[in-house]
Amino acid sequence: MDKPYVIGMDMGGTNTVFGIVDARGNVLSKSAVKTGTHQDINLYIEDIYVELSKLIEDAGGISRIKGIGVGAPNGNYYTGNIEFAPNLNWKGVIPFSNLMTEKFGIPTVLTNDANAAAIGEMTYGAARGIKNFIMITLGTGVGSGIVIDGKLVYGHDGFAGELGHTCSVRNNGRQCGCGRTGCLETYASANGVARTAREILETRKDESLLRNIPIESITSKDVHDAALQGDKIALEIFEFTGKILGEALADFVAFSAPEAIVLFGGLTKAGDFIKKPIIEHMEKNLLTIWKGKIKVLFSDLKEADAAVLGASALAWEI
Amino acid sequence: MDKPYVIGMDMGGTNTVFGIVDARGNVLSKSAVKTGTHQDINLYIEDIYVELSKLIEDAGGISRIKGIGVGAPNGNYYTGNIEFAPNLNWKGVIPFSNLMTEKFGIPTVLTNDANAAAIGEMTYGAARGIKNFIMITLGTGVGSGIVIDGKLVYGHDGFAGELGHTCSVRNNGRQCGCGRTGCLETYASANGVARTAREILETRKDESLLRNIPIESITSKDVHDAALQGDKIALEIFEFTGKILGEALADFVAFSAPEAIVLFGGLTKAGDFIKKPIIEHMEKNLLTIWKGKIKVLFSDLKEADAAVLGASALAWEI
Repeated sequence: MDKPYVIGMDMGGTNTVFGIVDARGNVLSKSAVKTGTHQDINLYIEDIYVELSKLIEDAGGISRIKGIGVGAPNGNYYTGNIEFAPNLNWKGVIPFSNLMTEKFGIPTVLTNDANAAAIGEMTYGAARGIKNFIMITLGTGVGSGIVIDGKLVYGHDGFAGELGHTCSVRNNGRQCGCGRTGCLETYASANGVARTAREILETRKDESLLRNIPIESITSKDVHDAALQGDKIALEIFEFTGKILGEALADFVAFSAPEAIVLFGGLTKAGDFIKKPIIEHMEKNLLTIWKGKIKVLFSDLKEADAAVLGASALAWEI
Repeated sequence: MDKPYVIGMDMGGTNTVFGIVDARGNVLSKSAVKTGTHQDINLYIEDIYVELSKLIEDAGGISRIKGIGVGAPNGNYYTGNIEFAPNLNWKGVIPFSNLMTEKFGIPTVLTNDANAAAIGEMTYGAARGIKNFIMITLGTGVGSGIVIDGKLVYGHDGFAGELGHTCSVRNNGRQCGCGRTGCLETYASANGVARTAREILETRKDESLLRNIPIESITSKDVHDAALQGDKIALEIFEFTGKILGEALADFVAFSAPEAIVLFGGLTKAGDFIKKPIIEHMEKNLLTIWKGKIKVLFSDLKEADAAVLGASALAWEI
């Protein structure tokens, strides 16, 4: 093959990770730069250029690279822009794809991080061979990528699949970063788990290992650790989280009738603590025609590689 | 053209309407048989055969017909079966497509009624030229058909688009015919409007023109008539219905980011009484990126023709 490699890049609020990937999904080399420290987008791209050029040289030069795939918050596949990303320094509309293409001289394709993850699962992960699935990323927030007939759904404007911002609690729901209340993301994310922990600990008296941790610094990992020791409140927190997510999944199934739902991200480390209530409450809320038929899969891609792989897969389609 | 016509057939719980349609969407001829009076599916098909054969003869014979498109409750596009339709006499799985194809000797394609309506809008109606939209049929129940990139979404099993059975009221919601509670359909359908009327009239004392009607026989048309006369409770009923539907639409937008939502069916006759609260509450609940950007269209196809046209459009794709 003329151009045997692609570049995958995952832009997070803190770090940007990129790597060179071959057609089999091997990550040949990988590096990273800080995202959050750059106020000027051009300096940030310069930084990427310096680091990435080393990897490109090692891979035999830019002529061996087909293109660059990027997963970025609020990344728009149609325009190649990053638009109004709340957790990035650069405000407004950033023509990221164009800037990268100019800098590197090879085509760049961009989508949001959850869409990139969905493409990664479809190409290399738990969703291989599955043509209809919904990817849900359970990280700091909740992202999603929807695949129908083997194609990612971008919608009319490129922003389809914001399932983290469907309404889980209609009245008196939690305040969301998007300005509204009750969004799924405020419950079923790592932050959501921490918020649930604080709510329960503050409003109740039951003993819990979690009371040994300053309440404002409790994380979803703390809750997991406590659950592993059989802590009842920790188990209840996962039960509650799984219930909200399971109920939401049942509604998502009614939309696209997927073969599977693939879950990915920090919260999936809680394993059966979260998986059991998710499945229980999804099943309880599914229409009869779908009961017992929707697979709930946890991603088995290494988290460190998954985002880069997903973004890279995008570049094969250039 | 060799075969200039298709047959469209709309199977309802009470009547089955069919017609011969040309490529421009003209319904050349139309007829109907009863659905509900036939306990035996074969006698029902025989009945259709007798009636339809007359129309076929008038159109120049069966050799001029490309195929038959059918919209039927719980119709499955992939299998051609009608599966467990709650409001039809024939229980279990009925291989309707096969039975029709055998009887008429031309190919038959089948989908559910809301999907057929969506195809009809895309081919001949309000959604011409729109590649991404969600069709919501507001009849006795609430049906839906989802179009992405110009293609109807069938999902893994052929049953995608059951948005009438997404959950609108999580706790203490109304009992739905599907066995669950709180489904959108129990609020935003003609039946839902009648139920809302009864609830309000029973739990409150305010005067209303609706109190002149025996409470169990109030219909959504009665509510519309009262609203036309400025009846406050009638207006409140549409406001409440529109709010529930608008909130649901905002979540649907987060799924597929459509250019438009097309509403069809009896409830749309209420016009602005229902359209205004739908749009107001959808807008209130949309993510910022979509505010002011999603068209809400009422179908302008004649209701009597729309279902037949939609089903017929399916047959052009054979």
